[in-house]
Amino acid sequence: MKKELHFDRSEFAARVTAVKSEMGRRGIDILLLSEPANHNYLTGYNAYSFYTPQMVIVALNRDEPIWVGRFMDRVSASMTTYLAEDNIRAYSDRYVQSTLSPYDFVAELVKELGGEKARIGVEMGGYYYSARAHADLVRALPFAQFVDADVLVNWIRIVKSPAEISIMRQAGQIADAMMKRAIDTIEPGVRECDIAAAVYHQMMSGTPEFGGAYTCSPPYLCIGERAIAPHAAWTDEPLPASTTINLELFGNRHRYQVNLSRSISVGKPPSGYQKLSEIVVEALNASLESVRPGRTCSDVAAVFRQTLARHGVEKEARLGYSIGVGFPPAVGERTASLRKGDVTVLRAGMVFHMMPGLWLDNVGITITQSFAVTDAGHEPLTSTPRKLFGK
Amino acid sequence: MKKELHFDRSEFAARVTAVKSEMGRRGIDILLLSEPANHNYLTGYNAYSFYTPQMVIVALNRDEPIWVGRFMDRVSASMTTYLAEDNIRAYSDRYVQSTLSPYDFVAELVKELGGEKARIGVEMGGYYYSARAHADLVRALPFAQFVDADVLVNWIRIVKSPAEISIMRQAGQIADAMMKRAIDTIEPGVRECDIAAAVYHQMMSGTPEFGGAYTCSPPYLCIGERAIAPHAAWTDEPLPASTTINLELFGNRHRYQVNLSRSISVGKPPSGYQKLSEIVVEALNASLESVRPGRTCSDVAAVFRQTLARHGVEKEARLGYSIGVGFPPAVGERTASLRKGDVTVLRAGMVFHMMPGLWLDNVGITITQSFAVTDAGHEPLTSTPRKLFGK
Repeated sequence: MKKELHFDRSEFAARVTAVKSEMGRRGIDILLLSEPANHNYLTGYNAYSFYTPQMVIVALNRDEPIWVGRFMDRVSASMTTYLAEDNIRAYSDRYVQSTLSPYDFVAELVKELGGEKARIGVEMGGYYYSARAHADLVRALPFAQFVDADVLVNWIRIVKSPAEISIMRQAGQIADAMMKRAIDTIEPGVRECDIAAAVYHQMMSGTPEFGGAYTCSPPYLCIGERAIAPHAAWTDEPLPASTTINLELFGNRHRYQVNLSRSISVGKPPSGYQKLSEIVVEALNASLESVRPGRTCSDVAAVFRQTLARHGVEKEARLGYSIGVGFPPAVGERTASLRKGDVTVLRAGMVFHMMPGLWLDNVGITITQSFAVTDAGHEPLTSTPRKLFGK
Repeated sequence: MKKELHFDRSEFAARVTAVKSEMGRRGIDILLLSEPANHNYLTGYNAYSFYTPQMVIVALNRDEPIWVGRFMDRVSASMTTYLAEDNIRAYSDRYVQSTLSPYDFVAELVKELGGEKARIGVEMGGYYYSARAHADLVRALPFAQFVDADVLVNWIRIVKSPAEISIMRQAGQIADAMMKRAIDTIEPGVRECDIAAAVYHQMMSGTPEFGGAYTCSPPYLCIGERAIAPHAAWTDEPLPASTTINLELFGNRHRYQVNLSRSISVGKPPSGYQKLSEIVVEALNASLESVRPGRTCSDVAAVFRQTLARHGVEKEARLGYSIGVGFPPAVGERTASLRKGDVTVLRAGMVFHMMPGLWLDNVGITITQSFAVTDAGHEPLTSTPRKLFGK
C-alpha cells in the first residue's frame, strides 16, 4: 500500500522531540492526545475517524508515538503515518457502543508502557476528549496522576516549518480560487445554495496542479440581514437585486487551512459602505506592515486600533488568530490571538488569519488576510485584492 | 428578521414535553444539553457555532428551553428558534479564551433557575461536552448532583414525526442526485478530488426545487486499495483505467441526513465481484422486507445473516444504525443499531441506514438503503437502484 506522507521523517522526529522536551519540563511521563490535528502533526495520520475514540500517545520512554483507534481505521494509520506496525493499536468493534469503553483499551496500553502510576497529560478542553473519556480513564488508572496538558502540542504547532508554509501557500491558492469562483457566481437571482455549491466545488477541485480537501468548518455566506448572524446556514432563496454579502472561505490542502473573507456589494451599495471598506483596508494594511519577529500580538492589534481611531472609529475586538493544521469542528489553534493583552512574541513561521470587521448599523465589511510571519516582516498567503468587490 | 422555523410550534412543544416526561421519570430537575443535534431538535437552532461552548437547558419548572451561546451567535438563535428573547442567553467575548469559563456563565444561569442543589443531567459522552466543561460545572455548582443523561434526548429523537420524514425524503432525493452526479463524473483519468468536487456541488445545489446543506461528515470515496481504509481522504490522483470504487454519500436538508452507498466498477470488474454484489442485494432486500413495527433490530439483522448463510457466507457485523438530525462530526444517533442482540423494538417513524458490506480479499461491495419504518413495513428514502454500477 502506498504511503501518503507529506513531510520528511526527520521533520516528524523534530516535532516529537519538541513535545517530549515540553513534557519533560512539565514532568509529564505520558501524554494522551485526543485532538485530531495533534494526531496529524505528530504522526501524519489523516482520516475522518475521530468521531469514535482515537488517541495518539507520546511516552517519554518510547521513541515513536502510538496511534490508538478503531479497528476499521488501522489501515488508514498504516497508509498515512510513518509508525511501525507495533505502534498502531486498534480496538475491536466490541468496544463500540458497548459496556466496554475504548478508554479501557487505552488504559491497558498505558499499563503496558509502565504508566500505571505515571503522571499523565490529557487535553481537558479538547473537542474529542469528552467528560466520559476522562471519567473512564481516571477509573481505569486509579494510581496515575492526571494533569491538564491542553494546547501543549498546539503551542509547538504555532511555528510552522518551511515545508508546512509551502503547503499553506497551496491552501491559500485554493482559497483565492474559491473566492474568484464565488464572485463569478454571485448574481441577482442565483440561489444561495448554488453559491455554496460553486464554492465547495472549487474547494475540492482546487487548482489544475493540486486538489483540495474538506475544511474545518463550512464556508460562511452572510447575506443581507444575515450579515449579523455570522455562523448561520445558507438558504435556497435567490439573491435579491441589491444586497451585501460577507463571504468567509477556507482553502484546505493536506489538512492545512487558510482563511479568506471578502465583502461583496450586489447592486447599489448602502450609503457609506465603500468608505467603510476603505477604512478597513487601510487599517488592515497598516497592521500587516507592522508585523515582524519580536513584536507582540498586542502590538499589531494596537496598530489596527490606532488607524481606526484616526477615522474616529473605536473598536476593541480580536483582530485575528493562529491557523494551521486542523480538522472539524474548527481550525483555531486555541493559542495566540492578535488582540490587546496577548503578549505572544511573533516568530518567523507563525501564521495568522487577520480578520478585521467593521459594522455600520446592520451591514458590515470583512476584508481579511492570512499571512506568515517572515524574518523581514510578513508573507501574504492569499493574493485576492484587499477591497470591496462589486457585482 | 425572518424566522426560519421548519416545524410547527406544537411539534417543538411535544418534543420538549417528551423530554420533560423522561426527566421526571429519572428525577432530573435540569438537563444541560451539549449535543448540537439536540439543540436543533428542541429549539430549531441551526448555526455552525457549537465549536465554542453552547448549551440548551431544559428545566422541569420552566416552560421553554433556554439557549446559551456566544454573543455573536445570539442573532442566529433569534432567527432559527421560537424561543422568547429572555430564553436566549449569550455570554460575552470576555468568556472566550480567558480565565473565566463560559460554564461559569451556565452555572449562574442554573442558579437563577433555582438549580443550585438540583439533580442535573449532562451528556457525559457527547462530542461537545469536554472533560473541562464537566470539571468547570462541577466546580461552579458544588451543591448540585450531576447524573449522566447522555442520549436521553437521542432516544426520543429516534421516532420521527411525519414532518421530519417529509424533510428526510428531500434529503434522500439530494443523496440520489449526488450519487447520479458521482457516477456520471467517474471516468478513467478524472482526478479523485474532481469527483469529490462534483459530489459536493450536488450536495449543496440539491435539486431545482430545494437546496442542500453541509453534511455531518465528508463523503467517502474509497477507491481501489483504499476500499479497506473506509474513512481515508481522497487524493488528486487520476482514476486508473480499471478499479473499484465504494462511494458513501450523504444528502442533508435542514440538518436531516440520509446516507447512500454504492459500489462502482470502472473497467473490467475483479473476478467474483458481480456475484458478490448480487448476494449483497439479495440479503439487503430480504432484510428490508422483514422490517415492520413490533420486530426488533436483532430480528432484522438475523434475516441478513441467514440469507448470507444460504450462500455459504458468514458475517457478523452491525447492519445499520439510526439516522436523523445531525451536525458534524457524525450523524449517528448513538441509539439503536441493526445488529445481533439489539432488542430495540421497531416503531413506525424510526429511520435507519441499512449498510451491509461484503468483502472479498481486499475488494468490497457496499450497497445500502436508508428507510423509514412504516405501519405496514418500510419506506425507502432513496431511489437509486440497488445494484453494482459499471463504467
